[in-house]
Amino acid sequence: MSSKPPSNVPASAKGAAKTAITPTREENYAEWYQQVIRAADLAENSAVRGCMVIKPWGYALWENMQRVLDDMFKATGHQNAYFPLFIPLSFMQKEAAHVEGFAKECAVVTHHRLETGPDGLLRPAGELEEPLIVRPTSETIIGDAFSRWVQSYRDLPLLINQWANVVRWEMRTRMFLRTSEFLWQEGHTAHATREEAVEETMRMLDVYATFAEQWMAVPVIRGEKTAHERFPGAEQTFCIEAMMQDRKALQAGTSHFLGQNFAKASGIEFLDQNGQHQHAWTTSWGMSTRLIGGLLMTHSDDDGLVLPPKLASVHVVILPIYRSDDDRARVIEYCRSVAAELRAQRFSDCAVSVVVDERDERGGDKVWNWIKKGVPLRIEVGPRDIEKDALFVGRRDRAPKDKQSIARGEFVAGVGATLQAIQDGLFARALAYRQQYTRTIDTKEEFYEYFTAPAHAENAPTPIHGGFAMTHFSGEVQVEERIKSDLGVTVRCIPLDKSEPGVCPFTGKPSFQRVVWAKSY
Amino acid sequence: MSSKPPSNVPASAKGAAKTAITPTREENYAEWYQQVIRAADLAENSAVRGCMVIKPWGYALWENMQRVLDDMFKATGHQNAYFPLFIPLSFMQKEAAHVEGFAKECAVVTHHRLETGPDGLLRPAGELEEPLIVRPTSETIIGDAFSRWVQSYRDLPLLINQWANVVRWEMRTRMFLRTSEFLWQEGHTAHATREEAVEETMRMLDVYATFAEQWMAVPVIRGEKTAHERFPGAEQTFCIEAMMQDRKALQAGTSHFLGQNFAKASGIEFLDQNGQHQHAWTTSWGMSTRLIGGLLMTHSDDDGLVLPPKLASVHVVILPIYRSDDDRARVIEYCRSVAAELRAQRFSDCAVSVVVDERDERGGDKVWNWIKKGVPLRIEVGPRDIEKDALFVGRRDRAPKDKQSIARGEFVAGVGATLQAIQDGLFARALAYRQQYTRTIDTKEEFYEYFTAPAHAENAPTPIHGGFAMTHFSGEVQVEERIKSDLGVTVRCIPLDKSEPGVCPFTGKPSFQRVVWAKSY
Repeated sequence: MSSKPPSNVPASAKGAAKTAITPTREENYAEWYQQVIRAADLAENSAVRGCMVIKPWGYALWENMQRVLDDMFKATGHQNAYFPLFIPLSFMQKEAAHVEGFAKECAVVTHHRLETGPDGLLRPAGELEEPLIVRPTSETIIGDAFSRWVQSYRDLPLLINQWANVVRWEMRTRMFLRTSEFLWQEGHTAHATREEAVEETMRMLDVYATFAEQWMAVPVIRGEKTAHERFPGAEQTFCIEAMMQDRKALQAGTSHFLGQNFAKASGIEFLDQNGQHQHAWTTSWGMSTRLIGGLLMTHSDDDGLVLPPKLASVHVVILPIYRSDDDRARVIEYCRSVAAELRAQRFSDCAVSVVVDERDERGGDKVWNWIKKGVPLRIEVGPRDIEKDALFVGRRDRAPKDKQSIARGEFVAGVGATLQAIQDGLFARALAYRQQYTRTIDTKEEFYEYFTAPAHAENAPTPIHGGFAMTHFSGEVQVEERIKSDLGVTVRCIPLDKSEPGVCPFTGKPSFQRVVWAKSY
Repeated sequence: MSSKPPSNVPASAKGAAKTAITPTREENYAEWYQQVIRAADLAENSAVRGCMVIKPWGYALWENMQRVLDDMFKATGHQNAYFPLFIPLSFMQKEAAHVEGFAKECAVVTHHRLETGPDGLLRPAGELEEPLIVRPTSETIIGDAFSRWVQSYRDLPLLINQWANVVRWEMRTRMFLRTSEFLWQEGHTAHATREEAVEETMRMLDVYATFAEQWMAVPVIRGEKTAHERFPGAEQTFCIEAMMQDRKALQAGTSHFLGQNFAKASGIEFLDQNGQHQHAWTTSWGMSTRLIGGLLMTHSDDDGLVLPPKLASVHVVILPIYRSDDDRARVIEYCRSVAAELRAQRFSDCAVSVVVDERDERGGDKVWNWIKKGVPLRIEVGPRDIEKDALFVGRRDRAPKDKQSIARGEFVAGVGATLQAIQDGLFARALAYRQQYTRTIDTKEEFYEYFTAPAHAENAPTPIHGGFAMTHFSGEVQVEERIKSDLGVTVRCIPLDKSEPGVCPFTGKPSFQRVVWAKSY
């Protein structure tokens, strides 16, 4: 086993006394994650159990993700709509596997007003005849609408997306990754044939993979879930899986082929071209604010958040550096003119977004503030830079002290290309990391050793070890459960780009292909 | 009293046997409203009491509204964030007037899972220690966050907006106007001084008025609410009020100056420049999907929805008209090329949005379909139009049959100006309507007569009468309550553009200015 730390620690920062984040990834990965969120001011825990507050810097990132995804959904023919937050209890019961999957963790509304009790305190009053569930997902309530909207084959395909909040009463929560309330989009579609529904399922999986790789710079493996990990009520669940820097897998998006299960449960029927009644074939697919956690854990380092330029709401921050009031006016004026020039440049179909940080605070504090927030490019400008008409430029994908003086005109003209280079570099680095920690394993012994031998920092509360194991599997649920209980490792997905058949090292039986095994979020 | 029907019934449609909407506005205004929504496919009632489904055509309108408002908020220095859906019961209790205002109509979550009972049916389980309220508005939960975010005067002003769903358990609901769940934005800001908070309150009222008038083409009166109609917990509530075609007022947006009430309740304190602890001054302001109802009732007619071009997601629909298959290909090709030319034109900072309706349905059905959906411009193209290289154009602000043949080049070059003319015309028509039904009244007798004498259609379930009465008022709550109980009329607002002092006809006491009295939604 390699004992190198994750490769995207900037070389020059290794061993340096100062990093912005305490602890480092190696020392305590889980705590590092929380501290990156805090240092970047992305979000915070709220007074409501398991619910977070998404702060402006975090929400701006979500808005950018939404905008890109929404455009992709519309380009593939989908329309947005909005359905009720509440689901009648009776609706949840319509699909047996579905209720089984969600009943254990849902918020239940039972009353519709408050009254003051004899103790002078408020208490629930006005009990509802039928309790309402705060939606954990909307298959049943949207299915009810679809049953009215779909009458004839002419009404199909029906391609709908919803941006919404959902609630799953999680017992152990972690900001972005697992919260009781989260924001997401859920696509719901109905089709006349199995083939069309399967095609839609795969189309949206592709949209998700494209978004993850081209926008988030997060390399993903497309695959199918085993029956064990399937969405409750689905016939097939497809997913994209990414590797985080602790080598655990994060499921970044799922696309479900629901067969006719929900159409039968909700009565989505249509008259086909031959005048026959048919149940529709449906799909659903979703991505959530969890992606922000995945983005963070893919790119960030011991200095804080690293944003991929294509999703950053600020591409360039300009920091005026001066000592006297005389200098101040001159330096700020220069910075503003550079900002104006940069804003006239384009990157990724948008104007380059620039902030001039004119706050009266220490220069060093301001620099670190923006490093921790993950802004791709920092420009420091002092009187000497103005004399040379040059900019002192730092890139977030390099070490904090690795800065370069670049002629103003050259930097401005090349800013789009530089941002693209950072974007591409982040993807390449994450892909190399995943490849480094993906191992083809053919024996049970090596498999167990891979997921138990700590690679480094043995005393860390959560030693980092293992990665993705590409190992044959003959598909028995009991084997999956045994390995999960032994190692905390599960089949993350059965990759779509199939490898050759072989032998399952756990059962000795034939296996169609290697699958991805990993610990996961 | 004039007995003319509302002036935006296209003249040529009057008395025509066919209108798209049954009943007409005169026959039954409330039912007309529901039928316009249905005919335009904007929304529908759901299986959940008081909650609606916003269908794609309605949601696209909301998305356009959101985009424009969001840009206006950002241009005035606000940032978006997201706060929990749930509010602990104890938070609601912190501000006495506030809980009083919302306790009677809120959804209460009391359990966090479901279990199967002895009868085999699901029932709530896992009772929460503290019940949670589904937010009816977020002053208290955002106040809790602000109490952490605000420490020093340097942290102020804090300018936050949230796009969210909220729930108020309304007993009598009507789509868009009053639903148990609705979508809105809520701005929440904190300031160091009373003056700055008041300035913010008025700034956002201006933003709302600008949005209503320039984008929705809905003329509004800016004013202050009386104590009776104030937001629970506010020191002052300002609003914009619009007149609907049944001459009732609709409150289209509110901006509240909250004084230090919520800052004290939530502990939003800061250290001022002299090192003294101070409570912040806060504001809140909101606009909701209710606006869609207001837009509908301002512009729509007995043929259906009328969309102001600046918020329409489709500006122009092109309808190929043909009889033979030979014609079909040629006509559709021509339509597509016209569409491409139109899309290269600009209107209101966007590309002109065009749909070619190639569905294989009867031409007349298709035309009516788009009339009912409110699309500003319809172009019919048949073989003869192609020969002339001309387009047969209908405008939604004119009667359905009032169509004109316009040379293709001329129409394309002028499409932006035509859309602007429709936008301006809708505003002018709505303003003229409001002026027509606004009366300056100085005696109690005339006031009572104004709001009781039906102007026309006396047998209609809801006879239309009255309008806005500009009448002096000396401000007594009992007088307001008496008039409300006698006539169902209330003070909609005390206009900001003050008229001269006078005498209140109800009390004989001096009055500072005339106020707007009306029935309302």
